[in-house]
Amino acid sequence: MSSRLRSIDWVGDKVRFIDQTKLPNELDLIETDDYKIVADAIKKLKIRGAPAIGIAAGFGIYLGVKNFEDDDKENLKVAFQNVCDVFAKTRPTAVNLFWAIERMKKVFYENLHLELVELKKKLLAEALAIQNEDIQMCRQIGLHGSKLIPDEANILTHCNTGWLATGDYGTALGIIYTAFEQGKKIKVYVDETRPLLQGARLTTWELMQRGIETILITDNMAAYLMKLGKVDCVIVGADRVALNGDTANKIGTYNLAIIARYHNIPFYVACPTSSIDFNIKTGDEIPIEERGSEEIVEIMGQRIAPAGVKTFSPAFDVTPNSLITAIVTEVGIIYPPFEENLQKIKRKIYARD
Amino acid sequence: MSSRLRSIDWVGDKVRFIDQTKLPNELDLIETDDYKIVADAIKKLKIRGAPAIGIAAGFGIYLGVKNFEDDDKENLKVAFQNVCDVFAKTRPTAVNLFWAIERMKKVFYENLHLELVELKKKLLAEALAIQNEDIQMCRQIGLHGSKLIPDEANILTHCNTGWLATGDYGTALGIIYTAFEQGKKIKVYVDETRPLLQGARLTTWELMQRGIETILITDNMAAYLMKLGKVDCVIVGADRVALNGDTANKIGTYNLAIIARYHNIPFYVACPTSSIDFNIKTGDEIPIEERGSEEIVEIMGQRIAPAGVKTFSPAFDVTPNSLITAIVTEVGIIYPPFEENLQKIKRKIYARD
Repeated sequence: MSSRLRSIDWVGDKVRFIDQTKLPNELDLIETDDYKIVADAIKKLKIRGAPAIGIAAGFGIYLGVKNFEDDDKENLKVAFQNVCDVFAKTRPTAVNLFWAIERMKKVFYENLHLELVELKKKLLAEALAIQNEDIQMCRQIGLHGSKLIPDEANILTHCNTGWLATGDYGTALGIIYTAFEQGKKIKVYVDETRPLLQGARLTTWELMQRGIETILITDNMAAYLMKLGKVDCVIVGADRVALNGDTANKIGTYNLAIIARYHNIPFYVACPTSSIDFNIKTGDEIPIEERGSEEIVEIMGQRIAPAGVKTFSPAFDVTPNSLITAIVTEVGIIYPPFEENLQKIKRKIYARD
Repeated sequence: MSSRLRSIDWVGDKVRFIDQTKLPNELDLIETDDYKIVADAIKKLKIRGAPAIGIAAGFGIYLGVKNFEDDDKENLKVAFQNVCDVFAKTRPTAVNLFWAIERMKKVFYENLHLELVELKKKLLAEALAIQNEDIQMCRQIGLHGSKLIPDEANILTHCNTGWLATGDYGTALGIIYTAFEQGKKIKVYVDETRPLLQGARLTTWELMQRGIETILITDNMAAYLMKLGKVDCVIVGADRVALNGDTANKIGTYNLAIIARYHNIPFYVACPTSSIDFNIKTGDEIPIEERGSEEIVEIMGQRIAPAGVKTFSPAFDVTPNSLITAIVTEVGIIYPPFEENLQKIKRKIYARD
């Protein structure tokens, strides 16, 4: 546990998280030992960002078993599975969520022979490990990725991929923070990222806290910005990467990748290898979550469209590998051909396990 | 004068216009004979859309001279020039504004020898002619452009280019209304069009009034929508077209043109020939208005970004001619090579004059 403010952290015997839906106007820290509150926070985007969701699921599942008192192994299994199911239903596109649930399940079943109090300790240790590994991963992504960032770089980013979205530091923003700490002069253009405005609400706030020059634009200004020569590279995060490099990320990422290519601007994806889904060959297999129309027709509770208008509201899109210059992970920078080079990463990771 | 509701109209001895900043929640009709209220409405986007601005300037300049009583020609010239200057300063990128001012000036100077009451009549007749010609132009744009629209077409549009933006019918939306009246089944996807949300607030409202199936998306969803095969063509308006076909239009148009090309989807521009600026060779010569940061950091009065964040807020962008499939005008559909074919239009119009 650190005294540093993190988006999600373990404090004594509770989870503490920032309600990100209230930023930047209010810093609301929620402490809870109720796993249902954690699951609900994931569902309602109070906790968001693929790595932070994984961490939340780890702590949440531990909280779900913390108060079990029935030693009967069969009852325990049923109760544990119920808790895992609650988390599995929160956000269907977030691979880190399922990865974290699987890690917790593995520890549970491997230690089911232990006394209940010992089993619980193992589960807490695993949740803390998920958190710590993520923080270390982000540091590594930042160190690798910073090599791609020239001095005086003007960088465009989308959505929120910083310490708010991860254990700490962040993925795409982790690269920016690292380059900045290395003394490079950095200017960051931030897409507001409709519909939920994570760029306007969260990314600007994060970056300004660290003293990085931050300029907010609406999503549809990016092409003109590039035409003016004001963007040296684009860095985005990823919710899920297929084995061929196709990348699911916040809606609007695919737009950005096309216009970056049109202007010959490098387009980088930053993510931990836990966001790479080695079980799917291409982006076509990634399910795209559709969200409710209220996210489009209302902004911060204000109605912006006529009553009864239909909407189409995909939460993500898939950027084809052909538009991606490189994928930055904690194990290094991966360049095309992605099919070949992600296979190498897969072999390395499976060997490590 | 028609009993039909128009965005701007002449009613007896006053101008009546819809305050478009209050739509879709409130239909606020403003009647005034004060030219400064009309000029202020243009500046504050209560009256918006290049053709509607031209019509407003015509009526507004007439209102500015309506109460003149000093017969001295020199005094009259100074006063008239002052009124014209007020309108010239409202929106620097709108070529129709300057075109309308020039028409009113021409009538003024050609008829300065008449008695004041007769001169005023000539000016009102010219303002009404500007309005009527625009309505006829929109009908012609609609008739020509409807030939490009197949039955069961799914059309994506940006900003607002319908009867709210023009004398009546509209340019890009005029094509859609005409195709719809011809019995074609049409589905329209509408970009919300940040920052001022003209698509969400105005275009959806207009289309739904006419019973056209309307689906609202955020600007950054367009590429994914195209990838899904849900867009047969894109139709946008224009604020100013250069002699080579480069087109200045609402910010985000250039984004759309790039992603349409990437998906091999036709990209049509619809505008009256009065939006073609035959004095400029390429889009590089078009000045791009930058607007205040409040349009980005506040939506409908709600703050969405941290205090003190910097912004970049161009009102327009320029789409290069290479990304445009055709330009639809009241004199017909213009295809590439635009440099050559717009020269032909220029000769035709100068001959007509």
